[in-house]
Amino acid sequence: MDLKNTPTLPNKGIEEDITRKETASFINEIGELQLKLYAQSNAALLVIFQGMDTSGKDGAIRKVFADVNPMGCHVISFKKPTELEYSHDFLWRIHLQVPPYGMIHAFNRSHYEDILVPAVEGYISEKIIKERYDQINDFEKMLEANNTHVVKIFLHISKEEQEERLKERMSNPKKFWKHKDSDWETRKKWDQYMDVYDSILEKCNDIPWTVVPADKNWYKEYMVASKILDALRKIDPNYPELVTKMNKSLLI
Amino acid sequence: MDLKNTPTLPNKGIEEDITRKETASFINEIGELQLKLYAQSNAALLVIFQGMDTSGKDGAIRKVFADVNPMGCHVISFKKPTELEYSHDFLWRIHLQVPPYGMIHAFNRSHYEDILVPAVEGYISEKIIKERYDQINDFEKMLEANNTHVVKIFLHISKEEQEERLKERMSNPKKFWKHKDSDWETRKKWDQYMDVYDSILEKCNDIPWTVVPADKNWYKEYMVASKILDALRKIDPNYPELVTKMNKSLLI
Repeated sequence: MDLKNTPTLPNKGIEEDITRKETASFINEIGELQLKLYAQSNAALLVIFQGMDTSGKDGAIRKVFADVNPMGCHVISFKKPTELEYSHDFLWRIHLQVPPYGMIHAFNRSHYEDILVPAVEGYISEKIIKERYDQINDFEKMLEANNTHVVKIFLHISKEEQEERLKERMSNPKKFWKHKDSDWETRKKWDQYMDVYDSILEKCNDIPWTVVPADKNWYKEYMVASKILDALRKIDPNYPELVTKMNKSLLI
Repeated sequence: MDLKNTPTLPNKGIEEDITRKETASFINEIGELQLKLYAQSNAALLVIFQGMDTSGKDGAIRKVFADVNPMGCHVISFKKPTELEYSHDFLWRIHLQVPPYGMIHAFNRSHYEDILVPAVEGYISEKIIKERYDQINDFEKMLEANNTHVVKIFLHISKEEQEERLKERMSNPKKFWKHKDSDWETRKKWDQYMDVYDSILEKCNDIPWTVVPADKNWYKEYMVASKILDALRKIDPNYPELVTKMNKSLLI
């Protein structure tokens, strides 16, 4: 992968108005299919969101799941591992949070953080990083083989757009809580992060990634909704038949 | 409590149109306060839903949390305990699922099932039932004292309304998946369930219950939204101040 030369903006000629309308209909259909997925409960959907700080993971999740029943959809935000989590292999806390059949789970960050940060900061060796690529591929394939469909979204923003958004977190009182000084430190290592993401997108692609140009929210939302809808259509859930030993005619 | 003589319908004179509009504005405000709760992350909200089969727990949850960010709100449906859960005290699986600070969790059924079913079916003694009342009161008070606010909703439907709804599950293909023959068996013990609920509503009222007339969805939704909004207003969350050691002026 070559993120540096991959667009963060939608192609010219894509019209915002039309796109927004399509997104709205996608979101609606996601809601309908989710109800069927929940009713049938023989498959699950896991949507993994990765991206640099401010790339719009929170916003994308909020938008595309606006019409799903909260009972059937959980969002899990992975933070810095706790001591308990650290005392296990890196996939332990991830595995605990995969969706049961019938559910959609969205991961706001994921096991990919266990390559990213250690690789940039040099906590772990090249050898272990390579092992983790394989372990992740195996893990994700195991999930797919067991009817947990995996959608992987990388939200791709430009370094310039990130600067605007980080600044907004320091000027808009409703966003102060999102500010962390350390995000500005991470930003200094932008190129190193892009390099590691290039490798991840290439090496952990057995279950394929979608790189979403994310400088414009309306286009990001369209792409993400479209991918999730594709996955749900492929699962093709249906309301199950009535299962009963009762005599229905007696009830009328 | 005397559920048999407690209305399951709204009082006469309450207008549906006006009520629906109020509900919509409540739901909107719940969404706004939830964002602040999440941003501030120093208190949590737990909403416990109980009620007979078909009393509309799922629907109420879907409706009143329509405007919250899924990242900040989880719904946990408690089913028949698993073997692992059974091998612990009855509050173990409940405690695992209480909301972390910043979050709203809705319990679709709860620890009250561990009194209800055993009491009606005679699995556990009067003595143990009484102990559980105390243990639940202590547990809920402990949560409140630790800034996890607890709202307890009992959705109260009539036996006649339940019959209609159970029948609909056998005639509407979109609801077949909700049908269980055993719900009709449980229904035969309606009076016993009401008796146990009477006791629960009385004995486990240190953190107070709200009994919601639930035969009409529009009124149920109004009452539930109103209670949740009250609790959030009482928490009174606010967007936190900017925390930084950076020199903001350098950023402009």
